[in-house]
Amino acid sequence: MNFASDNWAGAHPAISQSLLTASAGFSEPYGASALDRKIERQFNELFEREVAVFFVSTGTAANSLALAAVNRPGGVSFCHREAHMLEDECGAPEFFTHGARLAPVDGYNGKIDPDNLKAEIERFPPNFVHAGQPMAISITQATEIGTLYQPEEIAAIADIAQRYQLPLHMDGARFANALTALQLTPAEMSWKLGVDIVSFGATKNGCWCAEALVFMNPAQAKDLPFIRKRAAQLMSKSRFIACQFEAYLDDGLWLELARHANAMAARLQNGIANSKHTRLAWHAEANEVFAVLDQAHADRLQQQGAVFYPWNPPRANPDLVADREVLVRLVTSFATQAEQVDAFTELLG
Amino acid sequence: MNFASDNWAGAHPAISQSLLTASAGFSEPYGASALDRKIERQFNELFEREVAVFFVSTGTAANSLALAAVNRPGGVSFCHREAHMLEDECGAPEFFTHGARLAPVDGYNGKIDPDNLKAEIERFPPNFVHAGQPMAISITQATEIGTLYQPEEIAAIADIAQRYQLPLHMDGARFANALTALQLTPAEMSWKLGVDIVSFGATKNGCWCAEALVFMNPAQAKDLPFIRKRAAQLMSKSRFIACQFEAYLDDGLWLELARHANAMAARLQNGIANSKHTRLAWHAEANEVFAVLDQAHADRLQQQGAVFYPWNPPRANPDLVADREVLVRLVTSFATQAEQVDAFTELLG
Amino acid sequence: MNFASDNWAGAHPAISQSLLTASAGFSEPYGASALDRKIERQFNELFEREVAVFFVSTGTAANSLALAAVNRPGGVSFCHREAHMLEDECGAPEFFTHGARLAPVDGYNGKIDPDNLKAEIERFPPNFVHAGQPMAISITQATEIGTLYQPEEIAAIADIAQRYQLPLHMDGARFANALTALQLTPAEMSWKLGVDIVSFGATKNGCWCAEALVFMNPAQAKDLPFIRKRAAQLMSKSRFIACQFEAYLDDGLWLELARHANAMAARLQNGIANSKHTRLAWHAEANEVFAVLDQAHADRLQQQGAVFYPWNPPRANPDLVADREVLVRLVTSFATQAEQVDAFTELLG
Amino acid sequence: MNFASDNWAGAHPAISQSLLTASAGFSEPYGASALDRKIERQFNELFEREVAVFFVSTGTAANSLALAAVNRPGGVSFCHREAHMLEDECGAPEFFTHGARLAPVDGYNGKIDPDNLKAEIERFPPNFVHAGQPMAISITQATEIGTLYQPEEIAAIADIAQRYQLPLHMDGARFANALTALQLTPAEMSWKLGVDIVSFGATKNGCWCAEALVFMNPAQAKDLPFIRKRAAQLMSKSRFIACQFEAYLDDGLWLELARHANAMAARLQNGIANSKHTRLAWHAEANEVFAVLDQAHADRLQQQGAVFYPWNPPRANPDLVADREVLVRLVTSFATQAEQVDAFTELLG
Repeated sequence: MNFASDNWAGAHPAISQSLLTASAGFSEPYGASALDRKIERQFNELFEREVAVFFVSTGTAANSLALAAVNRPGGVSFCHREAHMLEDECGAPEFFTHGARLAPVDGYNGKIDPDNLKAEIERFPPNFVHAGQPMAISITQATEIGTLYQPEEIAAIADIAQRYQLPLHMDGARFANALTALQLTPAEMSWKLGVDIVSFGATKNGCWCAEALVFMNPAQAKDLPFIRKRAAQLMSKSRFIACQFEAYLDDGLWLELARHANAMAARLQNGIANSKHTRLAWHAEANEVFAVLDQAHADRLQQQGAVFYPWNPPRANPDLVADREVLVRLVTSFATQAEQVDAFTELLG
Repeated sequence: MNFASDNWAGAHPAISQSLLTASAGFSEPYGASALDRKIERQFNELFEREVAVFFVSTGTAANSLALAAVNRPGGVSFCHREAHMLEDECGAPEFFTHGARLAPVDGYNGKIDPDNLKAEIERFPPNFVHAGQPMAISITQATEIGTLYQPEEIAAIADIAQRYQLPLHMDGARFANALTALQLTPAEMSWKLGVDIVSFGATKNGCWCAEALVFMNPAQAKDLPFIRKRAAQLMSKSRFIACQFEAYLDDGLWLELARHANAMAARLQNGIANSKHTRLAWHAEANEVFAVLDQAHADRLQQQGAVFYPWNPPRANPDLVADREVLVRLVTSFATQAEQVDAFTELLG
Repeated sequence: MNFASDNWAGAHPAISQSLLTASAGFSEPYGASALDRKIERQFNELFEREVAVFFVSTGTAANSLALAAVNRPGGVSFCHREAHMLEDECGAPEFFTHGARLAPVDGYNGKIDPDNLKAEIERFPPNFVHAGQPMAISITQATEIGTLYQPEEIAAIADIAQRYQLPLHMDGARFANALTALQLTPAEMSWKLGVDIVSFGATKNGCWCAEALVFMNPAQAKDLPFIRKRAAQLMSKSRFIACQFEAYLDDGLWLELARHANAMAARLQNGIANSKHTRLAWHAEANEVFAVLDQAHADRLQQQGAVFYPWNPPRANPDLVADREVLVRLVTSFATQAEQVDAFTELLG
Repeated sequence: MNFASDNWAGAHPAISQSLLTASAGFSEPYGASALDRKIERQFNELFEREVAVFFVSTGTAANSLALAAVNRPGGVSFCHREAHMLEDECGAPEFFTHGARLAPVDGYNGKIDPDNLKAEIERFPPNFVHAGQPMAISITQATEIGTLYQPEEIAAIADIAQRYQLPLHMDGARFANALTALQLTPAEMSWKLGVDIVSFGATKNGCWCAEALVFMNPAQAKDLPFIRKRAAQLMSKSRFIACQFEAYLDDGLWLELARHANAMAARLQNGIANSKHTRLAWHAEANEVFAVLDQAHADRLQQQGAVFYPWNPPRANPDLVADREVLVRLVTSFATQAEQVDAFTELLG
C-alpha cells in the first residue's frame, strides 16, 4: 500500500527494455545521435509545431533551465505560493538564474488567482529599477496538490502573460496525468492556450530518468545549449534518455500509464469519500489525493503498512485541519494496483 | 573503427541488465533506498575508509560540486592549463561556485608542474583581499591527454596542498583506466597519497550514466546535500544510478573493462609506432592515444570510415605539429574491438 | 515643500566640512588609515562592545552584505512582505547571496507578525533538502512605512531567531530616527534585544554617502573582507567615509538631526490630522508620514509645488484606499524646515 | 616620500570645494538630478558622441559592470595575464557576471600580445558548447605596470575584437595619465581606435570617489540600470559623484593633474636611471615607475621614510629579479611634490 509518491515506483518494463536495446553500438554523444534527433522530431509531431527540446536529468533542472532561458537582470517570476519550484527545489530556480526571484501569488486549490497575479505584476512599473523586472509566469499542471487548471483558467493567465509580455511556463512534472484527465492534446494544453515553455516530465510516469524541456518558440532557447552545458545537464550518453522517450511515447504508452494512475486515484478518492474516519481535503483531479484524518488514525495506518506523507496545509485554507488532525498526501502511479487501493480503503474504515 | 570518444560507446550488457532488474517495485527516492545505502557502503569498502558519496548525473556535475563543497569568497582553484574542467565544461565549475576562479597552471604532458603550482599559489598572500584566496587544487587522473600522474607525482602535489591547507581533488572521469594502468587500489591512488575528493567516473567505462563524488573526509561534504539538490543533481529515482554501480563494481567488472580499453590503446599505440605516415604525439598510458599526421592523410582515414577528432596542441609544446599536420585523439573503450584497431592501423600505412 | 524622500536632501554642513578637512595628505587606502581605525573604535563605544564594522557605499550594499555574511546553500531569509530589501533593491540581496531566497512574512503596520514568522520557519524542517534552510531574519527599524518595532516586539522576534539559531539583522537605514523616537541607546535597540547585525545608515540623515555594516559578533564577519572586496564595496579612499562618520557622531549631531526630522514629521502628522480633505493612513512614529487623499487633490498639491510620491497600499490592508483615492508618502529629513511643513498643511486645507 | 599608490593621496581642493557647494538644497536622487544630467551631457562632449554613462563607487565596480553588461552564458573575457581585474579584484568580475571567466593572455610590458590573443580566441569555435563563448576583450590603459598601449597597438587589438565581434573594454583607472602622455583626446584613445566601453577613473587622479562607466554604444548598456541597482552601485545621493566630475573636468583640471603626476614619474625615473644601486625594471610611460634593487637597500629606504610596495615580477620576464633583489613599484599622483621625488632619489644613492 505505497502512496508515498510517484517517484517511489520503478520503471515500466517497456522503458527498461528500451534501455537494454539502446545499449549496443557507438553513437554520437551530447545529444547528437540519430536517436536523439529522431525523438526531437517526434516532439515536433507531439506538439504539432517545430519546438526546441532539451533532455535533462531532473524535473528541477527542467524548471530551473526554463527560467534561466528567459532570465533578465532583477527578474521576478510569478508562481503559486505553494508551487513545487518555490517550496521543494531548495532554491534551484534562483541558483540557475543567478538570483532571479520567485514571487509567490496566492490562490485557492493550488492555482494562481488571476487578480492576485495582475496585482503582483503591477507592483513592477516598467523601467523602475528599484522593484526589479517581471520575467515569467509559471503554472503547474497538474498542480502540486492534485488539482487541474481548466483550459479557460490557463487561457486567463496566458492573457495576463501576453498583456505584460511575459513568457508562460508550465511545470508538467505530471503533464500526462493532467492531459488525460482533461482529454486534451499536448498542443491544446500548451501553446494553443498561450503556454510558451513546458517542463515535460516522464520520470514520475514510468521512466527512470527522462525529462524534456520544450520551447514552443525555439528562438527563446537560443542560449540554452550553453546554459545547459554550464549547468552540467548535457548528458554525454544522452541517447539513453532519448530511448526512454522512444518507448514512452510509442503507441500511447505514456497516456495509458497516466490514465491508469488517475483511475487509481479516483478509486482511492471514492474509498475516502465513503470512509467514516477520513475526509477529502479537496477534490482530486489527477493522481494525487489529499485527505484529512486524525493523527492517531494516520499513525495506525502507517503501522499497518500504508506508506504516505503528511503535507503542509495550504496557507489559503488555514482552518482545513483541526487540532489532532493531519493532512496527508496519497499519490498513485503507473505501478499502483487496484488491490493496494482497496486494501488501503478497507483499512481506513 | 570508432575512436571518437569513450562516451560514444553504449552500456555494457551487465549494466543494462542491472537496470532491468532494478525496475520493479517501490523504493525510497532521492538516494534513500536500500540499494543506494548498500552501494554507499560498498564505496567505503572500495576506499577502505568511511567516505561520503554522492551520485550525480554527469562528470561535469561531479567536478563542479567538488569545488562547490569547498567554496570560499574570492576562491581560486588551481588546475592544469588544459584541464577538462577548465577547457571543456563551459564554465560549469564557475557556475557551481558562483564565480570562484580556476587558475591555470602550466606543465608538460598534461600534468601540473609542482614548481609552477607553488609559484601561482604564492601570489595569494593570506588575508590579502585584493588577490582572492586559494581554495583547492585539482588534478586529472588519467589526464586529459592520456598520460598518468605517477604516485610520487601525486604525492608531490599533495604535499603542496597540505602546506597551503588546500583540499586536493582528483577528476577521475577515467579513474579505472588510471588505476589498472598503475596497478593501484582506489585507496592507494587517492587518500593514501593525499587526495581528498574524487570524481569517480563510470559513464565512460561502460555505464550509461553513473558518476559518484567521493569525499574522503565526510565532514567536508556537510553542505553538499543542499548544494546538490539546489544544483538539480539529486535524482528522484537514484536507485537507477546505484544499480549501475552495483553491476559495475561487482566481481571486478569495472577493472576488467578498463584493462580492456587500456590494452586496446596499447595495441593502437603499437600500430602507430610502426606506421610510416603517423607519429605518436607522446606516450599513451591509459586509453587515449594522440598522434600527429598529415591533415590530408587524416581526411582520407575519415573518408574510409575511421572516426576520431582533431585536438588542440598543448600550449607547452607549440612545435609539436608542423604546417599541414594535425594532432588527433584516438580513444578506446570497453567496447573497442581488436579487429577495429587492427583495421585502423592497417589503413594508417 | 519637498517630502519626496530623505535622500533628496543634500549633506549637512558639518559633514561637508569634514570632507574638506580630510582632503589633504597621504593615508592608507582600503580602510587601513588611522582615521578608519579611529572610527571603527568609535563604533565599539557606540555599541558598548567590540563590533566588526564595514563601511560601504549604499544601504543596499549593507543589507545585501549582511545576508552574504551568513549565507548557506539553499538559504532562506525571512523579512516583512513589504520590506525594502524585498521590494526596493532590485534583487540585490539575492545577487549578493548567489540566489538565497527572501521569504515574505505578513504582518500589520509594516512589522513581521511573530506567529506568521514561526509558521513560515516551521516549513523548513532541519536536513530536509527539498525546502532549503532558514538562514536569517531581517527587520527594518524604523520600518519601511514609518512605524517602529517596540523593544518588546524586537525581543519577541529575537526569541524566535534564537530558538531556530538564526542571526537577526536590522535594516537601520533610518536607525537614528528610530533610536531617538524610542529614546534608546544603540546597544539597547540592538544586541541587548538580540539583534546580531545592523545596517547602520547615515546617508539619509545628513551624510552624502556613509553606510556602516555592524556585526555584534565579529566572528560572524570573518569572510566579509573578501566578500566586500569581491562585491566592489571596498572603497580605496575610504577615509572619506570615515570622516563623514567622524562629524556625524561628533557631539550627538546624528541624534540631533534625527530628532529634527522626527519633529518635522510629527508637525506634519498633526497638520494632516486636522485636515478635512486628507486622513492619516496610520500613525507615524519616525520621519515618514503616510496619508490618504483624493487623487485629484494630490495632483493639485503637486501642481502647487509639493513634492511627494504615491505608495503601494499594504497588502494586509486592502481596504485602506478607496476608488479615486491615493496613498502618499511624505518624508522629512534633517533639511526639512517648519515653514515648509506649515505651508504644505495649509495647502492641504 | 610617499610612492605607495595614487589612492593614498586625498582629494584635490577643487574637488572638495565642489562637494561643499553641492551640499545644499533638495534634488532628485539615484542619478536623476539636474547636475547628474548635466555631467552626463558633458561626457557626450568629452567623447564627441552620444555615450551612456554610469557613475559608480569604485573602479572594480566599473570594470565588473562593464563585463556584466555584455555577459553571455559560458562567456570568456580575454585580458592580460597580470591585468588588475584578474589579479587584484578578488574575483569581482566573476561575481558580477555570475561566473563568466577571465582568460589570461600573455604579453610583454603588461600588454596583450595580439598573436596570443588570436590563438586563445580560436580555442572557442562558434556553437561549441564545451569550450564556452568569447564575450569581451579588456585592455588596461595605462597598464597595470605603468606602460602604455600605443594607438596602433590598441587598433591591432580592436581589429581582432571586430573580427570576432567582441566588445573591447578599456580599464581606464589611469585614463588621464595615459591620455596626457600620448597627447590624445578621449575620442582618439577610445572609439576612434575601436574601444567600445571605458572605465573612466577619476579617484586616483584627485577625486575622492568618482568612477564613470562609459558605453560608446548606449544600446549595449540597455540592461545596465537594473544590473547596477542590483549590484548596489546606484548611489542615492549621486549628485555628489556628479559634482566631483564637474570640478574634475572643469577647465582641464583633470589633464593638469595627470600631467603633473606623469612629470613627477619622469623625474623619478630620471633619478633612478642615474642611481648606482637601483635599475629601472622597464621604461615608465605614465605615473608608475618600477625599479629593481637589493632587498636590503629597499628595507633601508623604507626605514628612512620612503613608502612603497614590492611587486610580483611579471611571469613573462622571470629573470628580471636576481636573488636578494626585489622589484618595487613607485607611484606618483597629483599630490606628489618634486621635493619628495628629489629627496627619494638622493636617498637611493
